[in-house]
Amino acid sequence: MHTRAAEIIAIGDEVLRGEIVNSNAALIASALEDVGWCVVRHTVVADDTEAILAAFREARARIVLVSGGLGPTRDDITSECAARHFGVRRVLDEEVLEGIRAFFERVGYPMSENNRNQALFPEGAVILRNPLGTAPGFRLSRGEKHFFFVPGVPREMARMLHAEILPFLEGILPEGAHRAVTLLRTFGMGESRLDERLEDVTAGVAGVTIGFRTQFPENVVRIVADGRDRAEAEERLLRVRTEVERRLGPMIVAEGERTIEEVVGALLTERGLRLATAESCSGGLLAHRITNVPGSSVYFERGVVTYSNEAKTQWLGVPAEVISAHGAVSDRVAIAMAEGIRKIAGADLGVGITGIAGPGGAAKEKPVGLVYIALATEGGTQVQKQQFFGDRDRVKTWSTAVALNLIRLYLLDLAGPSSLR
Amino acid sequence: MHTRAAEIIAIGDEVLRGEIVNSNAALIASALEDVGWCVVRHTVVADDTEAILAAFREARARIVLVSGGLGPTRDDITSECAARHFGVRRVLDEEVLEGIRAFFERVGYPMSENNRNQALFPEGAVILRNPLGTAPGFRLSRGEKHFFFVPGVPREMARMLHAEILPFLEGILPEGAHRAVTLLRTFGMGESRLDERLEDVTAGVAGVTIGFRTQFPENVVRIVADGRDRAEAEERLLRVRTEVERRLGPMIVAEGERTIEEVVGALLTERGLRLATAESCSGGLLAHRITNVPGSSVYFERGVVTYSNEAKTQWLGVPAEVISAHGAVSDRVAIAMAEGIRKIAGADLGVGITGIAGPGGAAKEKPVGLVYIALATEGGTQVQKQQFFGDRDRVKTWSTAVALNLIRLYLLDLAGPSSLR
Repeated sequence: MHTRAAEIIAIGDEVLRGEIVNSNAALIASALEDVGWCVVRHTVVADDTEAILAAFREARARIVLVSGGLGPTRDDITSECAARHFGVRRVLDEEVLEGIRAFFERVGYPMSENNRNQALFPEGAVILRNPLGTAPGFRLSRGEKHFFFVPGVPREMARMLHAEILPFLEGILPEGAHRAVTLLRTFGMGESRLDERLEDVTAGVAGVTIGFRTQFPENVVRIVADGRDRAEAEERLLRVRTEVERRLGPMIVAEGERTIEEVVGALLTERGLRLATAESCSGGLLAHRITNVPGSSVYFERGVVTYSNEAKTQWLGVPAEVISAHGAVSDRVAIAMAEGIRKIAGADLGVGITGIAGPGGAAKEKPVGLVYIALATEGGTQVQKQQFFGDRDRVKTWSTAVALNLIRLYLLDLAGPSSLR
Repeated sequence: MHTRAAEIIAIGDEVLRGEIVNSNAALIASALEDVGWCVVRHTVVADDTEAILAAFREARARIVLVSGGLGPTRDDITSECAARHFGVRRVLDEEVLEGIRAFFERVGYPMSENNRNQALFPEGAVILRNPLGTAPGFRLSRGEKHFFFVPGVPREMARMLHAEILPFLEGILPEGAHRAVTLLRTFGMGESRLDERLEDVTAGVAGVTIGFRTQFPENVVRIVADGRDRAEAEERLLRVRTEVERRLGPMIVAEGERTIEEVVGALLTERGLRLATAESCSGGLLAHRITNVPGSSVYFERGVVTYSNEAKTQWLGVPAEVISAHGAVSDRVAIAMAEGIRKIAGADLGVGITGIAGPGGAAKEKPVGLVYIALATEGGTQVQKQQFFGDRDRVKTWSTAVALNLIRLYLLDLAGPSSLR
């Protein structure tokens, strides 16, 4: 048996029938890989005793993560199946029962008799706490092999994984197999150019590999460092990461799961500046992304979606002659939109976006995907012409990413390199 | 062997490691279930000969859908493994090779020697065309058991599934096992109330079942009708569906995969009316959703995100006294926003949304999730007070759904019940 092999089993008719996408498996797999485990199989089976027992029997990996089927209803038979698979009976855990009772008192619902079932565990199970719901998880071990049972509700599962399971798994990793991982999100450079730029970046540092993945419209650099223990893995990671950062500089927009809108928000807050946006083809997506960040009301003054030419003229002061001479999709109009919204909102930064999101609206010399993006600031206005490819959704997303990146680069330049990312 | 059992196998390290969520499996499962097959297992395995062969061997269902590993690189070994599993050699298909050559000429890229591999198929395979890419799929059958091999790229896979595989599968369904399915999307009624309202709705019609699923913020009613043949299944479906429609009336917002913003767009187009929006807490998401619909520039005049009070006063004419007397989050301000945007934009319909998306911004008597939504029309202005629960994202989504539904109900009323949904 591969000493770092892991397997993931999801139990549930809804996942099986495609009513729910199995995003739990991706989340678990990614977390396991990041701490040095190697995922060899995912399986999904029905809420059915025979199917579940077959999946347990066929699991060959050293660790097996089973999600779902721990709820209070009759469908929820994972715990029973676990007991059968391990050949033990189920016993009541008084402490868990008390916790479930307290939970129902707190939320003010009556506790049903079924919820009592959630306090029954296979004998010998180590209970995994669930502060976010009524279904605790548990671990059953036999020798070197460990089964973990977690709820199917994603946030309950994720919490249990990070608080209870990953620390345990790190403890049982074989000598020399510890791992540290980081993700650096880049924008504006294709994978092959990134690859070139990072050639030999791991030279002289053992146990480190670099990988790339696309999370449109960003390209993510994943640095994986293995070491005999965590300290060694982290030291190796830091060495390579420092060199990657030196080579890519401001192409790196964010780290880990942080978004570019969060980075822009932190920079605006730090600099004490306010922003206003004027959108045409991106249709409000830029304002939506900016306002997804809690606290954005501090730096976001207003946004406007000027789909009609009248709105561009009336609110932003884009001269009707400019629109008729150059067309609504032109660098001149993008600049006038950015400068207009900056002025009327009394903001420090103004953004203007105009383009053709498609599928309709293309004209001679103005194909679908042609977008102009302008940023007006105290020091002047810059504009970018972009030719994007893909459907409406993709053009909208790409346009707003370019706009956010323009803002980010401007704010970084404003006061020298910042540590904010 | 269950005569309607189906199994789904995904091949690929990226899915296995959690870099990509296995949304293909959900899509395939849902399509298979909808035509009467019963999905009994999903599996994901690595790009590894032993792992793939083991998954093929363990597949017990009558039909097996295998996705991924058909590309031109060395990782792509699905076709080789299929040949080994079926004990046949691989042969070159001249027609496919010619198609690949033509594809590369059309896109202007040189064809690599590796692409030739994509024209090699296990002997006896029936080729499944792929008009969207270079990797054709194929079917291998032995007696009553059928393996289908499809590309991992979602849109190529989906096209092949619908154009080539589902019609074949319908043809081999056992007598009496044909199925017709419809999804009716409802808004504004919880699952338990829906359940009550639809009690006994299938009475007197054999072979029909009703299910519910939540796709926040909508509740979806799924009607499944089985029959001896397609005609009988569809006739049964229609009978129950007509009764469900009668009982739920305008609670049904859309059918199938159609979105409420598409429905609203079609109604506005049909009525020849124009819309403008003024958003605060929803931060541009309403404009974004509306402009996601191709052709929305016909009926969407403009939108504004007035995060600051100045913007509300300056652009929408919301009196500063109203804001200071009632607060920015109040029915009075929502109404003034809706009426203000309608007037200044010269639109037929104006929407105003103001609320507290959270996590910050709550005040005494104004908790997170409190949102006012107003619709101004020729005939007057209506306003709704809502108390939503959940995080920022959820409050934004819910607010815009209520706004879209208000518009939809108004437009339906305008000219009596419409067939548009």
